[in-house]
Amino acid sequence: MSNKLTGVFAPVVTPFNADLSPNFGLYLRHCQWLLQQGAGLAVFGTNSEANSLTLTERMGLLDQLAQHGIDAGRMLPGTGCCTIQDTVELSRHATVHGCAGVLMVPPFYYKGITEDGLFSYYSEVIERVALQDLRVYLYHIPAFSGVPVSLGLIERLIKRYPQQVVGIKDSSGDWQNMEDMLKNFPDFSIFPASESFLTRAMPLGASGCISATINVNPAAISRLCANWQAEDALVQQQKLDVVRKIFQTYPMIAALKFAISYYGDRPGWQIIRPPLSALGADKKSALITELDAAGFSMPSLLEA
Amino acid sequence: MSNKLTGVFAPVVTPFNADLSPNFGLYLRHCQWLLQQGAGLAVFGTNSEANSLTLTERMGLLDQLAQHGIDAGRMLPGTGCCTIQDTVELSRHATVHGCAGVLMVPPFYYKGITEDGLFSYYSEVIERVALQDLRVYLYHIPAFSGVPVSLGLIERLIKRYPQQVVGIKDSSGDWQNMEDMLKNFPDFSIFPASESFLTRAMPLGASGCISATINVNPAAISRLCANWQAEDALVQQQKLDVVRKIFQTYPMIAALKFAISYYGDRPGWQIIRPPLSALGADKKSALITELDAAGFSMPSLLEA
Repeated sequence: MSNKLTGVFAPVVTPFNADLSPNFGLYLRHCQWLLQQGAGLAVFGTNSEANSLTLTERMGLLDQLAQHGIDAGRMLPGTGCCTIQDTVELSRHATVHGCAGVLMVPPFYYKGITEDGLFSYYSEVIERVALQDLRVYLYHIPAFSGVPVSLGLIERLIKRYPQQVVGIKDSSGDWQNMEDMLKNFPDFSIFPASESFLTRAMPLGASGCISATINVNPAAISRLCANWQAEDALVQQQKLDVVRKIFQTYPMIAALKFAISYYGDRPGWQIIRPPLSALGADKKSALITELDAAGFSMPSLLEA
Repeated sequence: MSNKLTGVFAPVVTPFNADLSPNFGLYLRHCQWLLQQGAGLAVFGTNSEANSLTLTERMGLLDQLAQHGIDAGRMLPGTGCCTIQDTVELSRHATVHGCAGVLMVPPFYYKGITEDGLFSYYSEVIERVALQDLRVYLYHIPAFSGVPVSLGLIERLIKRYPQQVVGIKDSSGDWQNMEDMLKNFPDFSIFPASESFLTRAMPLGASGCISATINVNPAAISRLCANWQAEDALVQQQKLDVVRKIFQTYPMIAALKFAISYYGDRPGWQIIRPPLSALGADKKSALITELDAAGFSMPSLLEA
């Protein structure tokens, strides 16, 4: 029996007050709702605006979630920063909280980074965290980071840190890369970044998915992840893909926030930190028109 | 008489100890030497590995430089971070120190940022710093940030914050962009990121340059900046270009550090923070061979 982490994890979007401080009330409710719908919490991911939050805010939100009874074992916080010590600080904090693992985007300012350089970076972080319980999930998102996590790097890190380096989120959208990882690293927890890969990736050993749209469609995505062998799996997949494709044609974070705001009747959710922008009025109404036409709803959001 | 900031500024490379902590002794000496050679100090820039330093380290180094008598008025620290509050904290700190200005790279994780979004970001920062003495130099470096600073954005920011938004460093290497900025914003302090543009940009009103290679060739670059109308300006320019082109064929930061280490006989300078890597042995010897062949030297480095 494998100890691999499995399931679906939402890169939890982060609500703000009018002064741009985190709105913990809305945040907690959203986290509770996601858990009820079967999703885990990949807090502080790309779609969480994590890179628009300070270290203090990230650690403070995690502390507060734990204080309010959110199970750390269902959390996979993003901890990758440009600076070794910042990544170490967030990773230690999350590990001490008992989080299932940490999702570590590579340092993303400098470009043209060598495999040796990235290996040294991850080694420094792991050695400095210096906790047996640390579980690192790598994060391949070249469109944002500009720093790919190559198969060669994964292989070296697994070999050097077999207890610590245990999985990856692949946001490249490149199916060939997904297939190569699944074939080469069968014991690795491999999460595509879109539910649209579920019926193709699960039979090859994927662990689930960590996808933006789990924020708005958690129950249906959890269901397909658990039942990818069901007779109606392809029908389920098609339904998920319709919703996914709608969101993908809008700026994702703003669209997620507006959908939660609209279907959950909580206007505060629309606030977003610069440099990102909220949807304009025309895009808002187009998004809702498309989602309504697709029969989309978030029925249980209000009761959470 | 214009109050424009002028001259050459080195994006000061940052030396480290074996444990990767900043080596302040080497740092102070390098800063003193650069000032003696006529260069100002754009500390915490791209070539300073600023994005591999914590906020605490950046503020601590600036405090120490000031304590050791380095004139804040000759400093132009980089303060742009992904997060509004981090940028505010560094910018306030530098402004309170009396720095000539702050060099503010745009938030660089999220991509596809709109002009409105970036305008909001800079507005939030300027409003929150809330200091009359704040002088912001924008930083256009799309190859690293992935977030261009457009002419439209510059125009809007100058119009809204004429006292605060006073200049830009253009690291795009795109001469057309440089020319467009010089024509459109004659009162703006515009710094190309390479001394190779000096004889073309100074006659059009450029303020000087902020260039990586000022770390190793400060006196000659300062001289051409001050004497671009001299008869031998093009000869000077050609000599500078030879050195610049050599460094440009190597990973820049590692090459600068190795050159300082070698010509200054200070091996400690070679240490670089991951994810960047030091030059390999073959590249080190190739760099020195090329520089020696070009007659390059750093004669006064040892006496600094």
